[in-house]
Amino acid sequence: MNAALLVAYDGTHFAGWQVQENAFTVQQALEDALFAVFGFRARVTGSGRTDAGVHAAGQVCSLSFPEGIAIAPERIADALNTRLPPAVRVLKSVRAPEGLDACRAAKRKTYRYNVYVSPREHPLLERFSVRVPQLPELATLRACAALLEGEHDFAAFSSTGSSAQTTVRTLYSVRAEQGEALGVPVLQMDFCGNGFLYNMVRILAGVLLDAGCGKLPLEAVRAALAGGGRELLGKTMPAAGLTLLSVDYGFGLFA
Amino acid sequence: MNAALLVAYDGTHFAGWQVQENAFTVQQALEDALFAVFGFRARVTGSGRTDAGVHAAGQVCSLSFPEGIAIAPERIADALNTRLPPAVRVLKSVRAPEGLDACRAAKRKTYRYNVYVSPREHPLLERFSVRVPQLPELATLRACAALLEGEHDFAAFSSTGSSAQTTVRTLYSVRAEQGEALGVPVLQMDFCGNGFLYNMVRILAGVLLDAGCGKLPLEAVRAALAGGGRELLGKTMPAAGLTLLSVDYGFGLFA
Repeated sequence: MNAALLVAYDGTHFAGWQVQENAFTVQQALEDALFAVFGFRARVTGSGRTDAGVHAAGQVCSLSFPEGIAIAPERIADALNTRLPPAVRVLKSVRAPEGLDACRAAKRKTYRYNVYVSPREHPLLERFSVRVPQLPELATLRACAALLEGEHDFAAFSSTGSSAQTTVRTLYSVRAEQGEALGVPVLQMDFCGNGFLYNMVRILAGVLLDAGCGKLPLEAVRAALAGGGRELLGKTMPAAGLTLLSVDYGFGLFA
Repeated sequence: MNAALLVAYDGTHFAGWQVQENAFTVQQALEDALFAVFGFRARVTGSGRTDAGVHAAGQVCSLSFPEGIAIAPERIADALNTRLPPAVRVLKSVRAPEGLDACRAAKRKTYRYNVYVSPREHPLLERFSVRVPQLPELATLRACAALLEGEHDFAAFSSTGSSAQTTVRTLYSVRAEQGEALGVPVLQMDFCGNGFLYNMVRILAGVLLDAGCGKLPLEAVRAALAGGGRELLGKTMPAAGLTLLSVDYGFGLFA
């Protein structure tokens, strides 16, 4: 049986998604829980890796259950949750179409980057968002977002170390909303695309903030999209502000 | 010099506000930081105690600086933050009127109780809110909130162990708002009053939820307000969902 899991995690204390030597990862936690509950070892394939410290509200992964294991697919979630650390929870489990690979089949992903504006750290906001000293100008930030939407070569928007074969990606939408949390001004930036390069969302978030604060001219963003280099853009924002919101497969996998 | 501090803390790993033997508290953390930075020991007086696990976005405390310590009041915040654990931050510091006692002078306090609705725990929501299995009916919940507003004897709405001399309190407002966070339905309940008995907000939150889910008739709430006992009402909700939002002194202490 092929199964798919909808997984949420607080990435604060994980060394990211992917299994690695000498560090605890979310994939490892899921594979360990699978073994503890069902007694078999299997690879849990995520829709993609998330870096150390990055969170997820809607990571999707697929895995293959051996013939001998009899469990209703919708009950896998509760079974795994009995053995997962509290920072990881399977929100839903379903039978997936045979051969569905959560990584290769992913059509689009949506990430959210959260910031809050404060002269000092706020302990209730610090865990899932990143502090910035200044409120960006929303109209300018959105003008920059509009430049980024569409199909582009995002080579300048990724860190070295990416193994991607092409750096062309499509951003379907880049949306920014201001609000307040606990009396503090906050900003959410949502990025929906067909795929993201290494550190791409964290670089995009920095670009939007710098543009909104007048530190990065839109001309530099245009130049970066037109084949310019990483050095045209600002810094990569910290992992804590980033959450993988959802992965879309073109049909209602968990509906 | 008399100073006032605006303090936020993630209460998850604290044994509450008040200094006690053999447990680490927020008051202790502040008094230790004061000693580490300025070299004197002083009592930091909070607007009130918060229980173990309860959070604060706007706790207020007052303290007296000895004559010999020369520091601009607005710089105390950054100085203390260098020695506080990350879960506690002084957001603002100001010179306070001579003799102002943050506890006795408090005119009204606002607490927020957060819940989210999910069949399973959500790691990104679990830290500052409490999971409930069912969405309450908002109109009924608000009808119950309207009953609670005003001056009443809230004896039935407190846990034993309260040392209060009178159990009469005024609730200026009880407000409930539904929304969503990360695709999950959430409910915020805000309680503004002139003072709260031991566990009163956590009991009030449970009463509103039970009323909204049809588990507690409004008649029982009326009876509890009219001199009935604690046994008429449901359980005390967990600490993690509760945050002290703000304390009002009748003038702009931090303005």
